[in-house]
Parts: sequence; C-alpha cells; structure tokens
Amino acid sequence: MSRAFATVINQVRAQGLHGRVADYIPELAKADPDEFAIAATSVSGHTYQAGDSASRFTIQSISKAFTYALALQACGIDTVLRHVGVEPSGEAFNAISFDDRHRPANPLINAGAVVTTSLIPAATGDERFERIRAGLSEFAGRQLEADETVAASESATGDRNRALAMLARSHGMLGSTVDDAVEPYFRQCALLVDCSDLAVMGATLANHGENPITGQQVVSPTIAQQVLSLMSSCGMYDRSGQWLFEVGMPAKSGVGGGIVAVAPGEYGIGVYSPPLDEAGNSSRGVVALRTLAQEFGLHLFNHPDRPTSPIAGMVNDHSADTITLHLRGTIDFIAAEQVAYAAAEALHEAGRSMLLLDLADVTAITTVAGRLISDLCEDAGTARAWRVIVRDPARIMTS
Amino acid sequence: MSRAFATVINQVRAQGLHGRVADYIPELAKADPDEFAIAATSVSGHTYQAGDSASRFTIQSISKAFTYALALQACGIDTVLRHVGVEPSGEAFNAISFDDRHRPANPLINAGAVVTTSLIPAATGDERFERIRAGLSEFAGRQLEADETVAASESATGDRNRALAMLARSHGMLGSTVDDAVEPYFRQCALLVDCSDLAVMGATLANHGENPITGQQVVSPTIAQQVLSLMSSCGMYDRSGQWLFEVGMPAKSGVGGGIVAVAPGEYGIGVYSPPLDEAGNSSRGVVALRTLAQEFGLHLFNHPDRPTSPIAGMVNDHSADTITLHLRGTIDFIAAEQVAYAAAEALHEAGRSMLLLDLADVTAITTVAGRLISDLCEDAGTARAWRVIVRDPARIMTS
Amino acid sequence: MSRAFATVINQVRAQGLHGRVADYIPELAKADPDEFAIAATSVSGHTYQAGDSASRFTIQSISKAFTYALALQACGIDTVLRHVGVEPSGEAFNAISFDDRHRPANPLINAGAVVTTSLIPAATGDERFERIRAGLSEFAGRQLEADETVAASESATGDRNRALAMLARSHGMLGSTVDDAVEPYFRQCALLVDCSDLAVMGATLANHGENPITGQQVVSPTIAQQVLSLMSSCGMYDRSGQWLFEVGMPAKSGVGGGIVAVAPGEYGIGVYSPPLDEAGNSSRGVVALRTLAQEFGLHLFNHPDRPTSPIAGMVNDHSADTITLHLRGTIDFIAAEQVAYAAAEALHEAGRSMLLLDLADVTAITTVAGRLISDLCEDAGTARAWRVIVRDPARIMTS
Amino acid sequence: MSRAFATVINQVRAQGLHGRVADYIPELAKADPDEFAIAATSVSGHTYQAGDSASRFTIQSISKAFTYALALQACGIDTVLRHVGVEPSGEAFNAISFDDRHRPANPLINAGAVVTTSLIPAATGDERFERIRAGLSEFAGRQLEADETVAASESATGDRNRALAMLARSHGMLGSTVDDAVEPYFRQCALLVDCSDLAVMGATLANHGENPITGQQVVSPTIAQQVLSLMSSCGMYDRSGQWLFEVGMPAKSGVGGGIVAVAPGEYGIGVYSPPLDEAGNSSRGVVALRTLAQEFGLHLFNHPDRPTSPIAGMVNDHSADTITLHLRGTIDFIAAEQVAYAAAEALHEAGRSMLLLDLADVTAITTVAGRLISDLCEDAGTARAWRVIVRDPARIMTS
Repeated sequence: MSRAFATVINQVRAQGLHGRVADYIPELAKADPDEFAIAATSVSGHTYQAGDSASRFTIQSISKAFTYALALQACGIDTVLRHVGVEPSGEAFNAISFDDRHRPANPLINAGAVVTTSLIPAATGDERFERIRAGLSEFAGRQLEADETVAASESATGDRNRALAMLARSHGMLGSTVDDAVEPYFRQCALLVDCSDLAVMGATLANHGENPITGQQVVSPTIAQQVLSLMSSCGMYDRSGQWLFEVGMPAKSGVGGGIVAVAPGEYGIGVYSPPLDEAGNSSRGVVALRTLAQEFGLHLFNHPDRPTSPIAGMVNDHSADTITLHLRGTIDFIAAEQVAYAAAEALHEAGRSMLLLDLADVTAITTVAGRLISDLCEDAGTARAWRVIVRDPARIMTS
Repeated sequence: MSRAFATVINQVRAQGLHGRVADYIPELAKADPDEFAIAATSVSGHTYQAGDSASRFTIQSISKAFTYALALQACGIDTVLRHVGVEPSGEAFNAISFDDRHRPANPLINAGAVVTTSLIPAATGDERFERIRAGLSEFAGRQLEADETVAASESATGDRNRALAMLARSHGMLGSTVDDAVEPYFRQCALLVDCSDLAVMGATLANHGENPITGQQVVSPTIAQQVLSLMSSCGMYDRSGQWLFEVGMPAKSGVGGGIVAVAPGEYGIGVYSPPLDEAGNSSRGVVALRTLAQEFGLHLFNHPDRPTSPIAGMVNDHSADTITLHLRGTIDFIAAEQVAYAAAEALHEAGRSMLLLDLADVTAITTVAGRLISDLCEDAGTARAWRVIVRDPARIMTS
Repeated sequence: MSRAFATVINQVRAQGLHGRVADYIPELAKADPDEFAIAATSVSGHTYQAGDSASRFTIQSISKAFTYALALQACGIDTVLRHVGVEPSGEAFNAISFDDRHRPANPLINAGAVVTTSLIPAATGDERFERIRAGLSEFAGRQLEADETVAASESATGDRNRALAMLARSHGMLGSTVDDAVEPYFRQCALLVDCSDLAVMGATLANHGENPITGQQVVSPTIAQQVLSLMSSCGMYDRSGQWLFEVGMPAKSGVGGGIVAVAPGEYGIGVYSPPLDEAGNSSRGVVALRTLAQEFGLHLFNHPDRPTSPIAGMVNDHSADTITLHLRGTIDFIAAEQVAYAAAEALHEAGRSMLLLDLADVTAITTVAGRLISDLCEDAGTARAWRVIVRDPARIMTS
Repeated sequence: MSRAFATVINQVRAQGLHGRVADYIPELAKADPDEFAIAATSVSGHTYQAGDSASRFTIQSISKAFTYALALQACGIDTVLRHVGVEPSGEAFNAISFDDRHRPANPLINAGAVVTTSLIPAATGDERFERIRAGLSEFAGRQLEADETVAASESATGDRNRALAMLARSHGMLGSTVDDAVEPYFRQCALLVDCSDLAVMGATLANHGENPITGQQVVSPTIAQQVLSLMSSCGMYDRSGQWLFEVGMPAKSGVGGGIVAVAPGEYGIGVYSPPLDEAGNSSRGVVALRTLAQEFGLHLFNHPDRPTSPIAGMVNDHSADTITLHLRGTIDFIAAEQVAYAAAEALHEAGRSMLLLDLADVTAITTVAGRLISDLCEDAGTARAWRVIVRDPARIMTS
C-alpha cells in the first residue's frame, strides 16, 4: 500500500498543481510547499505511509470533527444539538451562519466549532484546552502538543472568531465566556500532528470509536457514526456536496494542509501538502484522495459485485430429514435473502422438514440479515411446519 | 420482512403523528390521510410490502433524482455539471438558489430540477416528457402514467417554477424554452406510482443501475453511484444533514407523501403516507424510516463487527513447499490485510516458498482488497523471494 | 445659466473621467462616448442648456419614476402600494428583491418597475405601452417615440426581467401576463429623449405635476411629491444614500447615459453623457450634478440664511387704535413666528387693541405659517382681548 | 402651536393605537404607556409643547444621529466614511449588515452606531462617553445625564452589540477596543431627555448646527446638512423609504419611545410615547408626526404656491434713464428668473439703458438665485449694453 501511495504522490506532483500556502499568520507561511505525504491506518492497526510522513503541521480545522466527538461524549447528543446544528450551510467556513433556532449551522464552520469547543465541560479555558488536547491525543494514540506560537498568532488575529463566539453567546448558544471558548479553540487548532496521526485518528472513527493502535475506546460507536455522518455532509465546507459526489468518503480538511478521510469499517487516511486551493483545501491532497478513491474504489457507494453465492454447500440428509446449508462470508440482507429462498426451495423439493443453517464459515452478519434469518426460523415454526436450527459456533448471530 | 414492516406501520400509527396533506392544489388535498404503506425490493428482485401498498399517488419531487440520472445518462456528467451544481443549498425547496457560476445549487431543489428536466434531449416539451416517462418507467419496471389532472393543476399554479426556469434561462442554464422545461416537469411530478414502484426504483439505484426485476441496465453504475451521493447530501432539502446524521440512507421525498430510500448494494425502500411535516416530508414516512434504520442497522456508517477471520483454513503442504490459505466471504481491505499478514507469518514460520490463495469460497472482493492481494503477489515475486498463486475458480479477482 | 452649464461641462470633461458605454445590447454600444449635455427647465417654463443638447438617447430606467407616477394616477396609492413597496433595497438594480409582503422593494429596481408597468390599465401590452408613451409625452411636453430596434434587442436579451416578472406574478403582484408587462416595459425604456426633455420632465415634478411648458396638469401635486420622495430614497440604486448625502436632489439615472434631477418648486435638470461608472450611472453626469449642487447650493438641506425681517414696516395709528404690520416675502413658520412675537410686543408697548397684518407684499405663505397666523387671530379674539385684521389683497392666505 | 399639538395628542389618543413598551431590559418596561408629549423648537429659539412634556426617558437610538455629527466634527468626513457607510441597508436595526468595503451600512443601525461611537477620539471608554455626553448636551442646550441603571442593564444583555463591534473590529473598522466602544455606546443610549430636549436637538440641526437657545455652533452647517441627509435616507430603519414617502421629514426614533423630526431651516420636533409598533418606532409618535405633516404641510416636497410676484414695484425714471425694480421676499431661482425676464422686457420696452435692482425688501436669496442675478449684471455689461446696479442695503447678496 505504501508503494501505491508513493505512486500517487509522484503522479500528483507531476500535475504541477498550483496553490497558496496559508499566510494569514506568519507561522503558517513558513510551511514548505513541497512537502507531501500520505498515510493510512487500518482498523487492524497497520499503518502504510509514503512521502514526508515525519513532517509535522498544525491540525487546524481537522480538529473540529474530533472536538465535536468529544462534546457528544461529554454532553450527550441532545445538549449538543440544542447548541449547534448538523446542516450544511452552503457557505464559506467563516460565514455568519445561524439557523432559525439561532444555532450555528454545523460544528465544522468556525461559528459552530467555537460553540462546540465551549461545550467541553471545564472551569477555565486552560482546563478546556487540556481536556481537548487529552481527547485528541487519545484519537491519535500519542500525546499531542500545541504549537503555542501559532496559537498566539491565531489569537492575535482572531477577532472574527471572537465576534462569531459573541454572536453565539448573544443567542445563548455558547457554553462559556468568549475567551474561554476562543482561546482553547485557537490552541486546539494549533495541535501538531503528522500524516500518520491523522490516519490513526481517522482509523479510530472507522473502527467504531476504538483506537486500533492503543485499543482504547475513545468515543462510543454511535458517536463515531455521527461524526462520520457530519463529515460526509459538511466536511469540505461549501464543496461538501461535490466531494461526496466525486470522492465519496467522509473527510475534513485544515488550512495547515492536512486532510483526514475515512473508509468506515476499514481505515483512516491522512494526507499532507501545504498549498491550498481556492476553497482552502490542500490542492494536492484533494487530487490525491480523488485519485485514490477512483483507483481503489473507495467511494461509499462503490459496492463490489456478488459473483458467488453465500451458500458454500448444501447437504441433503435423508436419515435426519434435514437439509444443511453451509453459509460463508459476510451475510448481509441480500445474502440472507438468497439463503432464505434457497432453503425454502430445497426443503420443498427434497420434502424435508428440518433445515440446518451452518454459520461456521460466516465472517460477519448485518443486523438486518440477522433479523431476516430470525424471521425465517420463526416462520418455519409457525407458518410452514418446518424446523430450522442454526449452528453458530462463533456466536456470530448474537455479537 | 413484510411482517416487520407491518409492525413498524402499527408502531408509527400509534404515535398519533400530526401532519397536513398538501393542499396547494385541490387534487393533492383529496389524498386519504390514513393511508400508510411500506415496501422494499432487494437487488435480488424480491419485494416485501405491508399496508396500503396498492394505493397510487403522484411521485412529485422524488422524480427529480431519477430524471437527474436520465440527464447524466443522456448528456454526460460534464454537461450536466455545467448547468446544475451538486451542493446542498441550506435553503427551502423553492428557494432562488444559484451559485457563483449561476447554476442552481443542486438538482433536487426546484430550480435545479427544472434545469435538469430541460437537459433531457428532445425537440418539444411533449417529447421531453415522453422520454422522462419512459426512463422513469424503466426504473420502476412498469409503464408509469401521469395524472394529467394533477399536472394541469400544477401548471395552472406553477408561476414560481416558471420564474425559476426563466432565471435559469437568463443565465444560460436552461436547455430549452421555459415552457418546454416546466410543462414536462409538471407532468413528470404527476407520474402515478405506488409504494412498490418506489421500492423498485430505489433498488435499481442500489443495484448499480440495473433494475433487479426486469434485469434492464437503466443507467450506468457510475451514474447510480452519483445519484446516491446526491440523495445523501441534498435529498431531504434543508434537513438533509440531519437525515444523514440520524437515518443515514440516501433518500428523496415528495409532497405527495412518498419517500424513497436506498441501502446501496442491498435494496430500495418505498414509504407512503400523505400527511407532511413542516419540512414537507411525509411525517409518518420519516419516522418509519428512522425506526427501520435504527432497528435494522441501516445507517450507512453502521458496520458489522468482524467476529471471524476471512481465512477459513490453512494447509501446510511439505511436499509442494506450499502454504494454502482458504479464504471466505467478502474480502475487503481489512480482510485482505489479515490475509497478507497471516500469509507472511505462515510462510516465514513454516519456511515455505510458495503461497496458494484459494478464493473458491470468497463471495466478493473490493477493488482495494484486490489491489492489496495483487501487491502481495507482486511483492512476493520481487522483494521476498516467494511465489504466490491465486486459485480463483469463479474469476472473482477480475470481475 | 447656460453659460454656467457650459463651464461645468468643460470642467468635468477636463477631469478625464473613465467609464464604459453600456454594451449589453449592440444598439447601446453605438452611443458616442464624447457627447455631453446639460439642460434645466424652471417651473416658469424657461429652459437653459449647453453641450450636445440635441442628441437623443433612450430614456431607460429614468422612465421608471414617471411610469410610477402614471400608475399612481391610474390606480391610486393603495392599489399601487399593495403591489410594490417604496423602500430602498440596498441591492443592485436587477436584484431579486421582494419584501415580506412579496412586493418588489420599490418601483425603481427592475422587479418593481415591471410590476409598476403591469399596473397601467390596458387590455393588451401594446395598449399599455401606448398609454405609457402618451403619459411620458405629457411629462416631456412633446410626443416621444420608442427606438423599436433597441426595444427588440432588450426583449431578445430580457429573460432576467421576464423571470422577475414571473416571480412577481407567482406572488400575485403582477397586473397582467408576463409578456404584457415586459414588452411595454422594454419599449418604455427605449423611448427616445434629449436632455431638454429630461429637464422638462423633471420640471413637471418640480412644478407640482404641472408641465411648465404646456401648462398641462400631468399628475396631481400629491403624486409629484410622492415620486420625488421615492427618487430621493431609491433613485440611484445602491448609491441612493450616498447621493442624498452628497448631492441632495431627488434624481433618477438610466443606462443610456441620462440623469434627471429635480429642485422641487424650482426646476428640473437633465444631464446626458453615455459612459457609465460601476454603479451604472453616467460618470460625467454624476460629477456634473455634484458640482452644480455644490456650486449653486442645490442640496435639499442647504437653506439660505435669513438676513432680514419679514416685517417691512410698522405703523402705529393712534386714531384707529391700530398697529399695522406690513409683511413681505415668503412667510414660513419662522417668519410667521417673528410676526407673532413682534405683534404681541408692539400691541403691548403701544397699548393698542387692533392689529392689521398687511400681506400685500407677501409672495408666498406656507401651510404651517398660515396656521400660525390663524391661531394668532383666534387667540387675539379670545385670550387677549385684541382684534386682528388681515389685509390680503392677493388672497394669499386661502390659496 | 401648543394648542395644535394638544389637539393632535387628543386625536391620536382617541385612535386607541396598540403597541408594546420595550421590555428587553426591565428598566424600559417600567415606562408609563399612557405618557404622550409633543414639543417643537423653532430656529428662532421659541419652544411649543403639549402633553407630558416634563417626562424623561432614555434617548436610545436617537443618540446615533447626534454622535455621528460629533464623529464628523472630530474626525472629518473622509475618515468617518472609511469606517461606516451612508446607505440604507433595507434591514432591521440589529442586522449584521456590512457592505463590500466591510463597513457597516450606515451609522443608524447598531453595527454602524457602535463603530461611530468608537471613532470619537478618547483614550478610554469613560472619556469617550464623557465627550459624547458633552456633545449631546450642547445639542440639547443643557447638561444631559445617563441613567446608569439602564446603561448597566443594556451592558448586561448587550452581547449582540459586542459581537457586532467585534465583527467590525475584525474588519479594521473599529476605532477602539470592543469594550471602549460598546460601553460608552450603552451609556450614550441611556442619556435622559425630555421631549423639549429632542426638539432643541432637532432645531440645532434645523438651524445649520447652531443651537437656537444657547447660540452655540455645535457642529458646522455642512455636518448638520449631512446628518439631515442621513436621517432622511436611514432614520427609520427598514421603514425609512415609507417614512420619507408619507411624512417627508428627516427623523430618528428610539426604543425608549422618543422620535426627533426636523423641518430644515425652521424647527425641530420631539415626540414621546413609549408603546412601540412592530418596527420599533413609537406607535403614537409615528401617527402624530404623520398627522402634523399632513395638517401643516411639513413634507419636504410640499412647496407653497407662488401667488404673487417677487417684484413689488417698478419705476421708470426718464431723467436717470433707469428702470428700478423693487424686489421683495425670498429670492430663489424662480424669483430671480422672473426678475431677469421682467427686467429685460422693461428695459427693452422703455428703451432704458440702466437697471436698478432694489433689494431693500428682500428677506433672503438663495445661492443659485444670487448667481443668476450676478449673471444678469455681467451679461448686461457685456452682451446687452445695459448697466445694472444693485441696491442691497442689508448686504443680502454677500451674506
């Protein structure tokens, strides 16, 4: 995989993309525009990387998605939704975008991000930052530290964010004073990461909230699912719809040149290249991820064909008046349905009254497929005068 | 499954939800507010239904997603993207929402839908409608007909849509005259469907554009993927973000009381209940789909655990200096990675120089997983001095 | 005065102002950018002019103010205000600007202008244009004719105005079909005028709605006052506030290069110079009017000092037990107040019981001043035991 | 006049207008809804009043117009215009309304008012307030004091204004820190006035910036003219256009129930009645001023007729070869023109070569009229071979 990443890096470099390194504060302007790195971490905990993967940069807006996860974990979904929405705003990241309930449109625009930060329970701004730093470190699987020079510079030029915080506060949406929201926010944005950190952070979301390296359950599976939903609809600001259309992965970018993208259930990807396009996303990062998505079929709605049956074999046992179906692989709704229809047909043709479903070779089963199989068992008992027995040595049906 | 739907219908009915049947034209006001139906069609072509599943109603805005598919098929993505965007607008369905390239924000708001209709190649409005009717009929797997009384009534009160069309035309975004866009649009919205039609239409998108009942490839797999992306980001108007957050299925609603939702790769769902909530979505339909999503784990980002290994068995064959790994189920990136690591370990431990991967029990393999296995084969030959042979009787690697 | 205009023309020419002749239709692009003319017509009917005063050009948006006057005359203020507001929109001339009552913000943006045209009672679009042409001709004091080539070209590229008309219609704000509004609107904008025509049209508004050349009462004094109010708040689009601030005259500009400005009660001014500034106003025209306003003290709120008394003389007549005050000039509130205080003091000092106010040399008296004098008469009779007699040979008190 | 005001108070009371006393802070909610007062002060320094004219209330937004005058006086027009525009925004008073140069739209919306306050030169917020208090006291002719309880309450609930200030600051538009702008702003709004204070403040604007009671020149005539222009276009928020249309006087209202209106060159009016209409203007105040405007002809564009000539008499003196014209009253452009034409005709008919214009009875002469008479003198000498002599005992031509 590392080799594939190296290939993509070379391909994308060759396209000679233009972009501007962020320079609204002098510290960001110092970034080396030539640096370029890609890393991925799988939910099994393996990491693949290529390029300048040791380079560190400030996490910037990427932090918004993870602080939102922390806020959900700390306050619960109801409280969080009372203070910030989950709707794409169709507007730029620094827009003054409040909905008819006076909530910032979503946590990934600045107004919503500052509100989200303010919801992290803490007595002071410093304590709030410390909690966020600790939480994001759990996502990354190592202790992250802020570049305090960057944070100070952001603070020095951060009046617009203060204004957004104050507007939110005037609507009763801020969980703290303005300073105790924006100062930890500036520092959260200044946390230093490298490309692999982003990959691990994404992998933690991909892995139901459990960090695949440390094994720590950082946030609940439900929260991981919610954050991925949010990144899908709002992650790339006013290009979110186009991103979902073309690339099809939940993602979040930062003005430091980083992008995190997630293949849910599989892996997280981190990309780093400082020059930004007009929308403020890493120019090379966007193209690299689009290329990876196309080449590797990563789009959410790119589903593999089903060339073979979920039924590995059938045994018709006269003596036991039983049909046995050996199932295999992942049993989703369609596989379960194939099983159900095949079973009915087999029982009917063979005149048997007992069905044994052997799940020994099944690798996974979706909720809805489990339900369909349960229905089948129940139907059999009542409506059809069969009996169905499930052999499930790995207790896969109840997992 | 039908039973589960019946249960959900009863549960949702019991909640006594309020809502108003659309009454902006008299024909819609005649709908029976008590009618309620759910249907699902799997990509295998099986249909499950409960409730008033024979009731017909006008498809209304649900048509927008399918006409967009037809436009992509007829004109190509570049032409279509020049005329209408794919970005959620954060605004109501009838908003005057044009982006900085003068495109309607997306094809699922009225402005974008009228533009999309206008792009269907035809010499006249009637011919345009006929092509759309034919195309949507292919999605549904039966000949759909418009309720011309409804269409006439929409036309009689449709000045706002005419204005949106004229605005689009003034920006050079309309593919026809105003009348030749809005009249077929009104008739497309008046096509009569029942709940199962919606399920089949959704299943066609779920099934890579191939109608699972008729077997017809209605649109290309890429287009099906694009339309699902669009439904994910923009399908429920200014509640699209919340819908993706809570329900997590690509969906599209219509003011006639219908909603279509899709589990990509698995099935389409149709729901029908005329009373609408404030956002113009079927009140009961929204709750029914949210209930189904929670109960059956249908959220896009709800992934099953992986309780068992993709490796069904290993054979260490001295005589042939070979390790054989019998793989099973769906091989995605993670499964492929498990295989790769297991193979390396087994070869190393056993001191063998040949690896046989037996894919006979594999049901599917994702692109990225195939790539990983190819890499493994290649690496083996070059870097590691092994040989790898793949046994793939169902030609699953090349499908 | 003509000489002063010639001087201003030379001064402004010397400033080398840049601007672009309107070229959205080819006919307008043919205008000679060097042409420059200024004309003024007083309410006494005298006209002063300098520069290329014989050049004709299309009236364009200047027509909006006068058609609004015709609509008020034909339909009454209540009907007109139900269909179009009188509030500056803060937006560009072609903005989609409707208020919360679904009215276009005002009659001087395109949306409001088309609605205003549609309110002119007529069975057909041609009849409507003919009524407008006749009405604007009465303002100008000669038969105006449209440049039908320009009108046709406007119509050919006029889809945005059609869309605005259709939006208005969808809100029930249009008084006709779209075509029967926009076609006469395009022709009204194409009426050919010269600079003196604009001066006479403005003078008619300045002269309480009576054309000072023909003596015809074109619209009522109240309507003239209303149109001047509208021109003051909305006449120069999104620069109206700045115009009132700097220049201080009710005005309206057109993309053909004309501007009409009014000194209420005194005269109308017409300026013509085709190159436009970014706001779409004649570059030289704006500067010429600003110069004239400064040099001649034309700003609405530039009031002359009051160096002398309104009391030309006082006669203390023993025999008649009377004080006579000879008043002079325009008696406004302040003058009347001076008279009242002087009278009280004189009667008191002289011990007289009768006051004769001689108005023979009074040139005008404002309503509020008349009221103050009436009060004085009445007070005298009741509270103060004087008598007051007014000598008013010109019946100026009752005019 | 006081009697007329008393009559209007009774008439308006009888209309039983509804309205709500402002209650967003408890102090304002204590206002007595029955109180009602009208006062006027003429530029001669006389005051007329009726109703509860001794009642004091907080000046609120009315202060914005006068602080703007102070800012113009202190910083000059160029600096002020770089920080805040003069364009009506078409939006509510607390809108987030910044133009494309990042300026608040105008000084009479909150954003612009806070910016204006911040421009008053001062080292601290307290000093800033003290300067404003002193300046507004000069307008009122007595020492005004703030209700510090109201100011504290405004400050406690003033986060939205802080946010607007911070937004302005983030655009470089604020002349101070946020606190040093908003705190003096809250106190400026809490200055206690009565109805007569408003009348005197308005009269100072009416009187070219000179307080007619104290004789102090508070601001320059140009600034008074600019502030009146601003009040005309933006004084009544999103009803400014309608106000100019219907009432036609520069005005500014405050949420405390006060309104100041100005008849330029004549007098200022103050009205007080706490219950507010939906737009936040005093319900009774609006109707009272509309009534006064209609009854007394106060609309800016309501000009008196000219029933008599500016020429009081003509003497044809054979011996001196001279025509003498005795002029009278206010000589505006039209009067001057009448004189010019009459002179030419008389000289021609009588064959005289000398014209004497006697201005002894002229009360005022406008700039443009003076120019016309100068032209006449000059023309006479050069083009026409006459001589013109002006007798101007009061030096009215040079004032």
